Amino acid sequence: MSVPSKRCDVLLPELSTPAALLDLEKLERNLGWMAARAKQLDVRLRPHIKTHKSVHVGRLQTRGQHGGITVSTFAEASAFADAGFRDITWALPIPLSRVAEVASLSTRVDRLHLLVDHPDAVEALEAHGRSCGVTFDVLLKIDCGNHRAGVDPRSENAVELGRRLASSVHLRFRGVLAHGGHAYACTTRDQLERVAQQERDETVGFAERLRAAGVEVETVSVGSTPTMAVARALPGVTEIRPGNYALFDVFQATLGVCTLDDVALSVLATVVGVYPDRDTLVIDAGGLALSLDPGAMHIDRDGGFGRVSVPGVASMLRVRSLSQEHGVVEGLGRAGAVRVGDRVRVLPNHACMTAAMFSEFNVILDGRCIDRWPLARGWNP
Amino acid sequence: MSVPSKRCDVLLPELSTPAALLDLEKLERNLGWMAARAKQLDVRLRPHIKTHKSVHVGRLQTRGQHGGITVSTFAEASAFADAGFRDITWALPIPLSRVAEVASLSTRVDRLHLLVDHPDAVEALEAHGRSCGVTFDVLLKIDCGNHRAGVDPRSENAVELGRRLASSVHLRFRGVLAHGGHAYACTTRDQLERVAQQERDETVGFAERLRAAGVEVETVSVGSTPTMAVARALPGVTEIRPGNYALFDVFQATLGVCTLDDVALSVLATVVGVYPDRDTLVIDAGGLALSLDPGAMHIDRDGGFGRVSVPGVASMLRVRSLSQEHGVVEGLGRAGAVRVGDRVRVLPNHACMTAAMFSEFNVILDGRCIDRWPLARGWNP
Repeated sequence: MSVPSKRCDVLLPELSTPAALLDLEKLERNLGWMAARAKQLDVRLRPHIKTHKSVHVGRLQTRGQHGGITVSTFAEASAFADAGFRDITWALPIPLSRVAEVASLSTRVDRLHLLVDHPDAVEALEAHGRSCGVTFDVLLKIDCGNHRAGVDPRSENAVELGRRLASSVHLRFRGVLAHGGHAYACTTRDQLERVAQQERDETVGFAERLRAAGVEVETVSVGSTPTMAVARALPGVTEIRPGNYALFDVFQATLGVCTLDDVALSVLATVVGVYPDRDTLVIDAGGLALSLDPGAMHIDRDGGFGRVSVPGVASMLRVRSLSQEHGVVEGLGRAGAVRVGDRVRVLPNHACMTAAMFSEFNVILDGRCIDRWPLARGWNP
Repeated sequence: MSVPSKRCDVLLPELSTPAALLDLEKLERNLGWMAARAKQLDVRLRPHIKTHKSVHVGRLQTRGQHGGITVSTFAEASAFADAGFRDITWALPIPLSRVAEVASLSTRVDRLHLLVDHPDAVEALEAHGRSCGVTFDVLLKIDCGNHRAGVDPRSENAVELGRRLASSVHLRFRGVLAHGGHAYACTTRDQLERVAQQERDETVGFAERLRAAGVEVETVSVGSTPTMAVARALPGVTEIRPGNYALFDVFQATLGVCTLDDVALSVLATVVGVYPDRDTLVIDAGGLALSLDPGAMHIDRDGGFGRVSVPGVASMLRVRSLSQEHGVVEGLGRAGAVRVGDRVRVLPNHACMTAAMFSEFNVILDGRCIDRWPLARGWNP
């Protein structure tokens, strides 16, 4: 593990709460695991940095890789470009309100891939490219069963849209992209494997139909953390875009993709109340610190809003409910001698949502905070 | 209405999305309504500013009032103190990790009320006060039926804790405080009225027991937006602390406390996809823009994650699901000729949570953005 130089040295009890803690050893282990998966699957790794929004994590994550990343917002794209990332895919159908901004950003990087799945977006991009002399790199987003965004890859419209992109003067058609987000609704590994197969098959199959129609397809991009955890082989796929694996969380552990010991993000909180009559304690991490993500409720209906690790107590407690700044934790009776003022750590249900609640990570190594890494939050640079 | 001077003048179609819009006329109407309620109920209004975290809104909200406010975080307390607010109640049992910071802040304002509900917190505050020569203003938090924080006001422990506070050298006991947060679980106005009555009765009753035990009780503080909307009379109560009413939201409208037309906060979003086969459209406002608050699910199980107002369409659509940056809206068939690139406005389920996702409000008057007001987000000044 390459340990960065210590830029600060703070003991955990000295941190103000709530605070986001990033366990550097677990992070490195998680990053190494997916890098090995990509190598084994013989695909490029273009990690989705929305999970952490940190250029420091992004640099560790792309070591030894080709350097491409995936982002979810224009703010992330811009911050990572500023930090030297040159190959960026914005994995949201391009909001046309951002066209002028992406045109400007695209001149600062080698490639800024934009997603399209509708002729109107294609037309608007072409018109803007024509008027300001920019050529946009575009990927065609397909729906591989998630039913959120994307064209139906089996439709004639999809092939027609690919043809149109390929023949455009102000667009460079780079390939096809899908996200098997419906993996998060699975309950068994078998189901996960089927979604991973579907994600691959629909995307590669569509790329082949485009090629048969005379359209050159360079990039065939798939991926989520759960599907990339279980995929056995990805012939025809050129790159994968998992993101959550960097931090992992209670949802992924419930899904069986990791263990709770792999979760690299936690929220440090202070116990502000203990209520033996109600068997609860209250911490100063509420819905704004942990996010209101209910986690994998389809598997664990009473999973609560995060797992609480109390020093000296073997089993973890559950966050039962959240209000804005209060977290109610159940199981005080199992929490031993926990007292008002004690610190606890909460493993989040959904690390991407929880990380985004904070402006910085406290980077933890050997029980000390050795650095602070800012997050590129929000939507505007 | 007192219109602030225009510090910017931007048309809505020129705003980047997602963006938080604050309708100034609705805000002023909501503020005036609760000010009139407080007058009618003959109580002081100490609004909870956690809903908006904006010193600009706080100034409008305390016009003609005694100037006291309620906050949920140390960051809010600090930002509002910097802006000249002199009388602050931090309505969370004091996190002992913040004692040194609150000691410092308490010297910059007239009063910083801290909440306690446990002897350990009392002891820690006293010890800190002794060591650094500060006297803390404290309120005793009671549980009036919400079962989140607070002592049982009918217990002997509660009276004993009040006696102890009153006799402390380094604490100034100021009174008692309760929050009828269980009002949010009500389904009818009758139920709301019963919770409002209970909130008042438990708090005033406890204050009277303390007085009978020889303890002076200056402040008797209650309130939430729903209970203060329905309370008929509050004899014995000295102040109320509603917060949400400044902005209102879909939850409050579902509860019958306001109408959707009263909601002063909305999120401006861009349509990034239209999917006629699935009857959905996708907007660039996901869980990070709207928050994942499911709203009043006990009343409206299929309420979704916000109501979407599409220009030229009479009925509002519902946000069916959210991922990090995607919002899936159902009812495309009813959305007329909505196209990729169009702007829509989303009324949030829970305005407090949604506002906190943004760094600033775009202040809207007559369809134009006339100012930008920052929010005191996070936990550290």
